[in-house]
Amino acid sequence: MNARELFRLSKKYRVRNEDASAKPLSSNDKAVDKSIVETLSQEIAALQDIFYAEHRRKIMIVLQGMDTAGKDGTIRAVFQFTDPLGIRTIAFKAPSTAEKEHDFLWRIHWQVPAQGEIVIFNRSHYEDVLVPRVHHWIDPGECRLRYANIRDFERMLSETGTVILKFFLHISKDEQRGRLQARLDDPQKHWKFDPQDLEERKLWEDYQDAYTEMLQETDAEHAPWYVIPADSKTHRNLAIATVIRDTLVGMKLAYPEPREDYANIKVV
Amino acid sequence: MNARELFRLSKKYRVRNEDASAKPLSSNDKAVDKSIVETLSQEIAALQDIFYAEHRRKIMIVLQGMDTAGKDGTIRAVFQFTDPLGIRTIAFKAPSTAEKEHDFLWRIHWQVPAQGEIVIFNRSHYEDVLVPRVHHWIDPGECRLRYANIRDFERMLSETGTVILKFFLHISKDEQRGRLQARLDDPQKHWKFDPQDLEERKLWEDYQDAYTEMLQETDAEHAPWYVIPADSKTHRNLAIATVIRDTLVGMKLAYPEPREDYANIKVV
Repeated sequence: MNARELFRLSKKYRVRNEDASAKPLSSNDKAVDKSIVETLSQEIAALQDIFYAEHRRKIMIVLQGMDTAGKDGTIRAVFQFTDPLGIRTIAFKAPSTAEKEHDFLWRIHWQVPAQGEIVIFNRSHYEDVLVPRVHHWIDPGECRLRYANIRDFERMLSETGTVILKFFLHISKDEQRGRLQARLDDPQKHWKFDPQDLEERKLWEDYQDAYTEMLQETDAEHAPWYVIPADSKTHRNLAIATVIRDTLVGMKLAYPEPREDYANIKVV
Repeated sequence: MNARELFRLSKKYRVRNEDASAKPLSSNDKAVDKSIVETLSQEIAALQDIFYAEHRRKIMIVLQGMDTAGKDGTIRAVFQFTDPLGIRTIAFKAPSTAEKEHDFLWRIHWQVPAQGEIVIFNRSHYEDVLVPRVHHWIDPGECRLRYANIRDFERMLSETGTVILKFFLHISKDEQRGRLQARLDDPQKHWKFDPQDLEERKLWEDYQDAYTEMLQETDAEHAPWYVIPADSKTHRNLAIATVIRDTLVGMKLAYPEPREDYANIKVV
């Protein structure tokens, strides 16, 4: 089974039943796994170059997960060799007043990739069916409406040339405890700590259920969810880099044809 | 004389009189120069981390130069080790219809850096006092008005916490000939070639004069122009990386203070 099949959301996936420490792609040697991540990242960088030259299709990568799940770390590792001109990352924070006064897809839409662009969403429109749901700011009916809005939006993006890849980085509650504590124990990392994270942590079970429903409601062939066990940072990178590399290979990218009419131009 | 003094625009700088092949920082050993660029890029990456943690000031880097001057290559080299989350690059193309229906600073303003952000402009609002000037779409009076608009705009950005660095990448006409021809001679690079570049090349002398006036009119202590001889790619990277590293060092960046009230929090 290839990585895209292996990590693709299944109908029976329930976040709370899943093992966040699974490492199905691992060689069981961390150093080997790391070197494979490095090779994959180099392949991704080379493929991005062709993708950019082609300048036809668009790629939107969505990363979702609880606090400390490793969204930033994933971007750093997987795109470490990619031309900084070739990717654009957007970290969506809590919406501003102006953003709240529009529909929830408004601030997302103008950030979607243009032709030749890879855009990585560090959090996304999926926050809008998670945070307000868990905090009961919207009711289940409103949430269902948003799932439908998201399905329509992503189908439109797909129909207009966007390849969509969505990753849920699944960490265990205990792994999050360790990662948050590490931020507190190192005074140098205090600036990364937000007390609000502890408030959200109290709602852990509710988030698990909200994620489960959201994943099941918004998975589609043209906008698949990949569910990544993410307690191991190295294996998380390995899994995501493999899915992205395989997707790029599957796109059958090719440099544009040489132009015969250019062959005899002499620059003076 | 340090690099910032060395490359800072002088009152007597006239593009057409300057030597684009000068290499004042070079060790005269290309391999050594390259390894220094690598070290500088690593320093910039480490400093960016503190700059981001500080989350207070903003950095706007403007790259200007004739076609093939090496704006893309500079970004690749100088920021090769910088966290992809830490920088945002914007390539400004010919303005769209909607953009043209606004003032020329409209599309620039919403792309300026937020706190903790380094934004690199690959071309910028300076195109609007170059292309239309050389093609006589605006008259000298209109152009002077735009210089004043730019001065006011950049002063406001500076006063609200933005460190501005502007680089003019100066290549010779002969160096451009070689670089354009290389794109034509390699069928794999045809997609990088735009016949319009040959039309602009015919206006070389006019561009030299437009650049000279623009540089002199918009240089300021808070928004300095650095004029970089750019026929040598390695030395160009060396010069720009040095100026950026020195600027970051001069900002006296520091990680935020540890929080005493965080010291005893236990995550449960």
